[in-house]
Amino acid sequence: MARQQQLDLLTAGRGTYDITQEVKKVVTASGIITGLCHVFVQHTSASLILCENADPDVRADLERFLVNLVPEGSPMFRHIDEGSDDMPAHIRSILTNMDLTLPVVKGQLGLGIWQGIYLYEHRSSAHQRQVTATIIG
Amino acid sequence: MARQQQLDLLTAGRGTYDITQEVKKVVTASGIITGLCHVFVQHTSASLILCENADPDVRADLERFLVNLVPEGSPMFRHIDEGSDDMPAHIRSILTNMDLTLPVVKGQLGLGIWQGIYLYEHRSSAHQRQVTATIIG
Amino acid sequence: MARQQQLDLLTAGRGTYDITQEVKKVVTASGIITGLCHVFVQHTSASLILCENADPDVRADLERFLVNLVPEGSPMFRHIDEGSDDMPAHIRSILTNMDLTLPVVKGQLGLGIWQGIYLYEHRSSAHQRQVTATIIG
Repeated sequence: MARQQQLDLLTAGRGTYDITQEVKKVVTASGIITGLCHVFVQHTSASLILCENADPDVRADLERFLVNLVPEGSPMFRHIDEGSDDMPAHIRSILTNMDLTLPVVKGQLGLGIWQGIYLYEHRSSAHQRQVTATIIG
Repeated sequence: MARQQQLDLLTAGRGTYDITQEVKKVVTASGIITGLCHVFVQHTSASLILCENADPDVRADLERFLVNLVPEGSPMFRHIDEGSDDMPAHIRSILTNMDLTLPVVKGQLGLGIWQGIYLYEHRSSAHQRQVTATIIG
Repeated sequence: MARQQQLDLLTAGRGTYDITQEVKKVVTASGIITGLCHVFVQHTSASLILCENADPDVRADLERFLVNLVPEGSPMFRHIDEGSDDMPAHIRSILTNMDLTLPVVKGQLGLGIWQGIYLYEHRSSAHQRQVTATIIG
């Protein structure tokens, strides 16, 4: 059995957006008891991560780390027509992934207590982002 | 229902190889309408990525970024018996992943319009690479 | 059909722990012939990787690379209340992933000959880690 739902999400530019509750709702609505929940962002400059969900400093530190790791305006980047934030956004998305698969356990998302699901917007400006959630079991 | 197919791919050495059409064919042949498509490379020095599919500079910039991030010949590497490109290839594969899971939506791969699937060869020389595609739904 | 099993694993602090045999046992016990095996760690400071399984230097080199990439005590980190190893552990987990999906081929894990599955502990001290394995097919 497979159930699928599109989530249309609006970001306000670079940063992490908690979508744990939205994904949990899709799992509950599926009625699936044991299986997998797959979440997928249909873009190449946004990603999906699991991250510690208690202290916002964790996500701020992660963002600072990535800004430093993949610097805007680096002379190594030639793909600059869409802005200096675009190529770093592609690399950051590849390093942190566009797909995420989670277990469904006893009809619930089998997350650890400190794990939250975040849509990670890597472009500077606000974007509409499409996410596909598929529950299978 | 699960359908599975092995893809035998020949690379010409380090770089990205578009396998989107090959994976789409497996999805279509499966007859599965709603579910997941899992792609897996059975090696530790090649990976599978989703990347922007319009401007080849994106993949060239990504390659330059990774060459800089995981430099060949770094004194921190002791696993050098198979060549100076081998240990960086293992690390690049772990950072960019050997597994990739995509949604199957209405009998098609649910990719965004700019997303392509690439086999990423991280060794310098040509290699035969085995990829397993599994469609489930 | 979906089968699921919890694995309770004890680590001795930072490093990689081979769990290939444990995961293979879950696959065999499931009786599933064609499908997927999903492995998931329910924490935000440990991850799951596929890595070369023959030369331990590969994992030692990987560890040295990550220590250098995400340095403890960096002034960019503000999340330091749980120790200087905690924020690097969160970032290392996100870069190397908490989820891993593998093919099940002819009733066996469809791994390449050099691929091993490792639980990667990123905290300095010993930890109890819960891993959920789900087989679906």
